Amino acid sequence: MAPLKLKIAAAGLGRMGKRHALNFLNRTPRAELVAAFTPDAAEMSWAKQHLEPYGVTLYDDYDKMISQEGLMAVVIGTATSVHAEEAIKAMEKNLHVLCEKPLSTDIAVCKSVVAEAKKRPHLKVMCGFSRRFDSSYRDVHKKIEDGLLGRPSILRSQTCDKHDPSGFFVAYAAWSGGVFVDMSVHDIDLTLWFFGDDIIPKSVSAHGIRAVQPALKQYNDYDNAVGVVEFHGGKIAYYYCSRMMPHGQEDTTEVIGTEGKVSVNINPQQNLVNYYHPGGITREVPGDYYGRFEMAFVQESNEFATACLDDTPLPLKLSNAIKAVEIGSLLQEALVTGKQIHLDETGRRIEQARL
Amino acid sequence: MAPLKLKIAAAGLGRMGKRHALNFLNRTPRAELVAAFTPDAAEMSWAKQHLEPYGVTLYDDYDKMISQEGLMAVVIGTATSVHAEEAIKAMEKNLHVLCEKPLSTDIAVCKSVVAEAKKRPHLKVMCGFSRRFDSSYRDVHKKIEDGLLGRPSILRSQTCDKHDPSGFFVAYAAWSGGVFVDMSVHDIDLTLWFFGDDIIPKSVSAHGIRAVQPALKQYNDYDNAVGVVEFHGGKIAYYYCSRMMPHGQEDTTEVIGTEGKVSVNINPQQNLVNYYHPGGITREVPGDYYGRFEMAFVQESNEFATACLDDTPLPLKLSNAIKAVEIGSLLQEALVTGKQIHLDETGRRIEQARL
Amino acid sequence: MAPLKLKIAAAGLGRMGKRHALNFLNRTPRAELVAAFTPDAAEMSWAKQHLEPYGVTLYDDYDKMISQEGLMAVVIGTATSVHAEEAIKAMEKNLHVLCEKPLSTDIAVCKSVVAEAKKRPHLKVMCGFSRRFDSSYRDVHKKIEDGLLGRPSILRSQTCDKHDPSGFFVAYAAWSGGVFVDMSVHDIDLTLWFFGDDIIPKSVSAHGIRAVQPALKQYNDYDNAVGVVEFHGGKIAYYYCSRMMPHGQEDTTEVIGTEGKVSVNINPQQNLVNYYHPGGITREVPGDYYGRFEMAFVQESNEFATACLDDTPLPLKLSNAIKAVEIGSLLQEALVTGKQIHLDETGRRIEQARL
Amino acid sequence: MAPLKLKIAAAGLGRMGKRHALNFLNRTPRAELVAAFTPDAAEMSWAKQHLEPYGVTLYDDYDKMISQEGLMAVVIGTATSVHAEEAIKAMEKNLHVLCEKPLSTDIAVCKSVVAEAKKRPHLKVMCGFSRRFDSSYRDVHKKIEDGLLGRPSILRSQTCDKHDPSGFFVAYAAWSGGVFVDMSVHDIDLTLWFFGDDIIPKSVSAHGIRAVQPALKQYNDYDNAVGVVEFHGGKIAYYYCSRMMPHGQEDTTEVIGTEGKVSVNINPQQNLVNYYHPGGITREVPGDYYGRFEMAFVQESNEFATACLDDTPLPLKLSNAIKAVEIGSLLQEALVTGKQIHLDETGRRIEQARL
Repeated sequence: MAPLKLKIAAAGLGRMGKRHALNFLNRTPRAELVAAFTPDAAEMSWAKQHLEPYGVTLYDDYDKMISQEGLMAVVIGTATSVHAEEAIKAMEKNLHVLCEKPLSTDIAVCKSVVAEAKKRPHLKVMCGFSRRFDSSYRDVHKKIEDGLLGRPSILRSQTCDKHDPSGFFVAYAAWSGGVFVDMSVHDIDLTLWFFGDDIIPKSVSAHGIRAVQPALKQYNDYDNAVGVVEFHGGKIAYYYCSRMMPHGQEDTTEVIGTEGKVSVNINPQQNLVNYYHPGGITREVPGDYYGRFEMAFVQESNEFATACLDDTPLPLKLSNAIKAVEIGSLLQEALVTGKQIHLDETGRRIEQARL
Repeated sequence: MAPLKLKIAAAGLGRMGKRHALNFLNRTPRAELVAAFTPDAAEMSWAKQHLEPYGVTLYDDYDKMISQEGLMAVVIGTATSVHAEEAIKAMEKNLHVLCEKPLSTDIAVCKSVVAEAKKRPHLKVMCGFSRRFDSSYRDVHKKIEDGLLGRPSILRSQTCDKHDPSGFFVAYAAWSGGVFVDMSVHDIDLTLWFFGDDIIPKSVSAHGIRAVQPALKQYNDYDNAVGVVEFHGGKIAYYYCSRMMPHGQEDTTEVIGTEGKVSVNINPQQNLVNYYHPGGITREVPGDYYGRFEMAFVQESNEFATACLDDTPLPLKLSNAIKAVEIGSLLQEALVTGKQIHLDETGRRIEQARL
Repeated sequence: MAPLKLKIAAAGLGRMGKRHALNFLNRTPRAELVAAFTPDAAEMSWAKQHLEPYGVTLYDDYDKMISQEGLMAVVIGTATSVHAEEAIKAMEKNLHVLCEKPLSTDIAVCKSVVAEAKKRPHLKVMCGFSRRFDSSYRDVHKKIEDGLLGRPSILRSQTCDKHDPSGFFVAYAAWSGGVFVDMSVHDIDLTLWFFGDDIIPKSVSAHGIRAVQPALKQYNDYDNAVGVVEFHGGKIAYYYCSRMMPHGQEDTTEVIGTEGKVSVNINPQQNLVNYYHPGGITREVPGDYYGRFEMAFVQESNEFATACLDDTPLPLKLSNAIKAVEIGSLLQEALVTGKQIHLDETGRRIEQARL
Repeated sequence: MAPLKLKIAAAGLGRMGKRHALNFLNRTPRAELVAAFTPDAAEMSWAKQHLEPYGVTLYDDYDKMISQEGLMAVVIGTATSVHAEEAIKAMEKNLHVLCEKPLSTDIAVCKSVVAEAKKRPHLKVMCGFSRRFDSSYRDVHKKIEDGLLGRPSILRSQTCDKHDPSGFFVAYAAWSGGVFVDMSVHDIDLTLWFFGDDIIPKSVSAHGIRAVQPALKQYNDYDNAVGVVEFHGGKIAYYYCSRMMPHGQEDTTEVIGTEGKVSVNINPQQNLVNYYHPGGITREVPGDYYGRFEMAFVQESNEFATACLDDTPLPLKLSNAIKAVEIGSLLQEALVTGKQIHLDETGRRIEQARL
């Protein structure tokens, strides 16, 4: 008898949705992509060509898709605004859920997803923080676990996109939740991974500029921002997010402990080639995050399938997804108000006046 | 109707055979692994666990396997000594063939495979030089095609394995064809790719030592060897092969042209992590060639499937496989005799006395 | 007739004072070290051996030294607390002055030195920000001037020392002015150089921890601190200073503009050697700032001598030395109070309540 | 009383001669440049401006210069053809000698210099192999001495100059001794240092092309050449020399032992800057050997002065200078004849026929 495969459906076939669908279709041996949903005509047309011939049933109605006979899981790659609703509906249909980050830019909504998941502990519900599946970050985590750093104390992490002059990111800012929630949330998730899930912010500051996209002002957002989070227990994380890189994607992380340090991607590179010419020696850089993290996404699909089929633990807690957005929102608030935020050891806000 | 998939069988389930089988099973969307053959009990036991449950029929008889109904192709990963015979038999059954390198360590045998393939031009027959499918080497080829190097004139390339103290390579030397045929054949294939398939060797020298495996003397082989091939038309390739690396796999290539230079893998690395400690800054290195070239092998499976299904050209000529072994054999001869070999512009040997 | 040489005296023969003395003695062809002063017996003993035999007159009294016949300049490398007084006395004796940074940790005192220098425009008075003389930083400045970065917008810079478990830095913190004034002042000076001398801080935040030196608490100081300065006109600089590096000195800077980016020392290295071993590939790192900046100090001595002798401009303004300490003090205040500081476009403080 | 300084004269004020003169004048505290000789009017004019004002007596006659009262040493940077004669004359005047490499391109002449030096053991006579004074190569030597490599077995070393389209090197080839004697002699000297002075060549091969300077044919020379030397005792060194680099100077060395490996300058760089732009990340490369080795030459001057004044051993044997030229000449012969050369364990030639 053939081994059971995870019958999964893909919701949303935008840029990342297409990738998830293809990864489950082609690069996840223990999964079988059986359905896909998109409300968008162009995406549907793409799906008819790239998914339907391979046995994937297509839907323009999410609810119908998740009612498909035999379906076991759904991967959600739609717009952020519907992530939570779709995730909850899927759970109600007894489906495992892999949801693109963030669950929501609204913390209360995030919490509703987590609450629903708690009710159904037999379901695997994961928010896709892709760096958790990247071999380099996993090596960092292992080195920390092995004690090579002593006590991790300082984390520097940046998410920096290649400059896109098309204006896309201005429109996107209308609903992205702001740069810290949209971009730095990955760096914050790394912080929870490397410093510990239970760390509590103590103080938060942030500063931002609009260097190349002045129109972001209408959304109170920025194209370059720096934020600092000090945690109770003597740890600091500081973040830089930018959409202005000239050369490509540059997502770099350093963790400094009392006895050692690690860095990830301090020398970004497209491949292993150097080109030597009269101007010097040049290497190329990935143009976007998928150029950097493609294999992490493939790993994510495979580990999700395994966890669902074998009922083994997922490598990250769903509740972290709330905590990462919470910290991102604190940074965003500090950025917009120009005030340092303080919190006590239980995570409650302390008024400036009381300091 | 579901799109046609390439029904393929895997011959040989040793170290590399297993990988080919799994790559066609799991990572080649347009292929379907339907059969596998091994004469080895331990390998058969592995196959019962990892292949059979997924619909792969197992055989301990190669001839029976290639007679399976509906089979379209075979990937050959058995011992080198049977590559040629199995490839020819497969062609006689009208099957496409992807054969691990080398076709044979005997040039006449290589030629018989090529001759058979010429008779059946509708079949895709490829010798698996994996570096042809590596994204970095492809970038080099593109840069050469784009003229960034001017006229490529000097090629340095090395295939260097991590030292294996188990003695495996001494036994292996009994039938490997010698280090230049076994290891440098990859570097020679790169030379044909970057200098042009039609280059003719003009002179050949080689030197070798036995630094860590003195027992190689019984097979007239070496654990470290350096060879130089000058080509007619003013080009030189020089090679280093070694099985003595302390740190891991280090396969490095440089191509120097009249106007530019490229290097591949000048800084070997396992991942994107650096570890900072009181002794300095350290990065790890892949332990073997699969750690360096895994994705190239996956790419190879996929491109082979596509070429077979769509009847599109393969990215490398089968005749190169002969030429690479021929040049490897010249180097091996120069190594063993201690004499420089000279050839005229048609590739015929010139006696030393006539110089 | 022999060309005129700058007759210079060295005040202070501690760690850096010794180096200045030897650089002027041996590595500054247009200068002649003619005198040295130290109140310390051990330093005097060193000077008798290393300076006196080469024609350097030794003093245990600063005032006497600066009265030496024919003296033209003094290099001040004494304790920070006497820098300003000694610099002013030297000017009163009509001597050129090269003073180690900072002029003082007290801004009013800094200003008194600058005021004195303004009265004597024929004198060259320089505060030794050594990075201004480093070839890599100069290359960055040239690339900015050449427009390769577009508009410089984000600067990240860190001054990170190897961990010294001796407790030296705890004692030192008693009078250092705090980490931002003592360490980050170099990074702030780079900011003035790369963003422009006339930039005005708009907002300032800082956070710090005591990860390895808890005793710093008595001096309200920290062993790791992160600070952010936003400037009017849409620029941000962020700084990290630490005395906890496991591997050695790591002073790294990045400048990101609207069209290009540069980094300095992203891969710290002691020399050009890599060591390959079973654990990977390792390179060593300089143990301290002099290992990184030795040649910058030599360049500084030489350019100071040239400016004095030829009456040519110094490469940095004395007033920058005040501004760098002012910004460092803002960071230190933000660090200690836990409040973000705001300033208007003239540089005046804005109260939080008014925001 | 002022400490004794080494009164030294500089012979030859060409490109490297000027640098030696200035290094002894300005950057060698224990030396005093007291005289300089050049037969060339333009060089004399330069000397009147840059040396004479600092107390250096100028000569257009070598013999007169070395007769100057009180002279203790001479640094010889004239044309190679007169190195030996001038060195011998200097020794006859009881002067220490630092002679630019090579002593001569004629081995018999080299031997005459060594013979003369043997007669006068109280004199320090050194042939300036500058890499012996480079901190990176010294680190390699120390790591070998410390046993980090096990038994050094393979050495790869290249001397590669930036392409100079002026034709200078064609003219230069008339008397350079050929590329292996002129360029690879440095790599051969490193081989003696790292493998041991007493190693005996066992077999030698070489190949060359004229890729950008076809006119070198008239001098039987090449612009790119690869040579291999196997030594008795199981060691191989292989060399690449080129005058065709597009990007700058690239002098790289690797030493591979049975237990470890080291590389020097595997990533050539002008300084610590990386420039990030839409085409990738670029670093610049030194344009010539002095950009790479300037500090080694300064170190050489200083150690030579110390050895002369304190009668301490020089860091390299004069006899190595012969051996390096001998091995270079073997490579050059192998290059020109197209024959592999064999030698017995005493270093005597074995005829091919006898193999």
